[in-house]
Amino acid sequence: MPPTDRFVSETSFFIRYAETDAMRIVHHASYLVYLEEGRSHFLRDQGTNYADFEHDGLFLAVTDVSVRYHHAAHYGQRIKVLTWVEAIQSRGLTFSYELFEDAGGTKLVTATTRHICIDSTGTVTRIPTSWRRFASH
Amino acid sequence: MPPTDRFVSETSFFIRYAETDAMRIVHHASYLVYLEEGRSHFLRDQGTNYADFEHDGLFLAVTDVSVRYHHAAHYGQRIKVLTWVEAIQSRGLTFSYELFEDAGGTKLVTATTRHICIDSTGTVTRIPTSWRRFASH
Amino acid sequence: MPPTDRFVSETSFFIRYAETDAMRIVHHASYLVYLEEGRSHFLRDQGTNYADFEHDGLFLAVTDVSVRYHHAAHYGQRIKVLTWVEAIQSRGLTFSYELFEDAGGTKLVTATTRHICIDSTGTVTRIPTSWRRFASH
Amino acid sequence: MPPTDRFVSETSFFIRYAETDAMRIVHHASYLVYLEEGRSHFLRDQGTNYADFEHDGLFLAVTDVSVRYHHAAHYGQRIKVLTWVEAIQSRGLTFSYELFEDAGGTKLVTATTRHICIDSTGTVTRIPTSWRRFASH
Repeated sequence: MPPTDRFVSETSFFIRYAETDAMRIVHHASYLVYLEEGRSHFLRDQGTNYADFEHDGLFLAVTDVSVRYHHAAHYGQRIKVLTWVEAIQSRGLTFSYELFEDAGGTKLVTATTRHICIDSTGTVTRIPTSWRRFASH
Repeated sequence: MPPTDRFVSETSFFIRYAETDAMRIVHHASYLVYLEEGRSHFLRDQGTNYADFEHDGLFLAVTDVSVRYHHAAHYGQRIKVLTWVEAIQSRGLTFSYELFEDAGGTKLVTATTRHICIDSTGTVTRIPTSWRRFASH
Repeated sequence: MPPTDRFVSETSFFIRYAETDAMRIVHHASYLVYLEEGRSHFLRDQGTNYADFEHDGLFLAVTDVSVRYHHAAHYGQRIKVLTWVEAIQSRGLTFSYELFEDAGGTKLVTATTRHICIDSTGTVTRIPTSWRRFASH
Repeated sequence: MPPTDRFVSETSFFIRYAETDAMRIVHHASYLVYLEEGRSHFLRDQGTNYADFEHDGLFLAVTDVSVRYHHAAHYGQRIKVLTWVEAIQSRGLTFSYELFEDAGGTKLVTATTRHICIDSTGTVTRIPTSWRRFASH
């Protein structure tokens, strides 16, 4: 369940045909791209964006991904992605996600991704303090 | 230039990070997925959708793709896709496309894709006559 | 560390440019495709293949994916994938993986994927008993 | 038909499940990745590689792609890619390709891609003269 004590971003989009596979469902790797789009949307919702972050010479490298697949999704359906910051530390943060079939509300996927902040030399560095607010209202 | 004598569908969406490559631009294969999304959107705009088409046992197989790349696009930008039916025959049709960077209007790609209609056995078959209107107002 | 009491499949291949992203490294979602290729190779090594499995009306649906990213990889490098069956139950199985940069031996990723066996109607069903041997020599 | 007066590179690999779509065939965009892998292999066959090319601050940007799809391919099959340099100019070159199902020899795709050479500032620049030999024995 998404938390009620912090900002939860919501976005939705149609499944693309290229994201399906020969089982006629969305390929399981496609969901990592949906999660990434959830993060991108979260940042845009917060008035920032990841492109600017990179222009400042900072990068969020993925260190861990954990996904549970509850139901399959199909071309023709819309995906709804809920994204929030589960935890934030000085040099890293954790996003959590719930993905639903938009029309019927069936839960498709729950997931968590962990990230560390690195600079352009690959050195682990501090997350901008302005990001602290992401883990609260 | 998009034609003025028929319906031209327009959709736009943010570039996804996964669609970029080590040249730091959108990978050229990603545009084929954008074209496909342009077709999907075209059909939704026309009150039909490709998922229903397949439920009826029909498929549009791609037979030719031709893409000209004018400018590179980057993460953080939005893509705008214009899609129209260039020509329609009894058993096939041709879509044309123009893709732009949404904010600045720079032309990114022009493309054409040709398709034949097949049934679930792979036999080339007639396109629904209701689709004739796609090539006109 | 891969187990020593059962078969461990090994395959290697060059990173494809399309698998990289604007951080100039392999995109984290690409590794799920590498894991899948590890499974495909494991089955071919065992004298079977997943295409035949599907021809028999059986499918392995992914229910959980867990990936830890240790180091980034770059275009020009080869990936080596070690794949083994971590556990097998009557209706499901778990694969584990270690991925290395082939030339230098740097560990890139460790991962686990869980799968259930379903038939063409989506009903959970028994894994072929011949697959029991996968979890042993 | 591949030319007989110049080097033609040949590589083959198994189709990956992620490359298929809900039509149960290889998705048409996947072939652009196969073509790219054909180019990578061509350069490795010639004792160079595209990673080194980029390390020298040069990039080959794709300007045109033209693909004709003859037959569909399926998971479980191997793809064979033939790649050669169709033409080379001072600042650009054209690759041509034929793709086959490896075991049975069915022709799957014929394609041409055009490229210009740019430097790290995006300026069109001269292709290394050592590359001239690619268009001959």
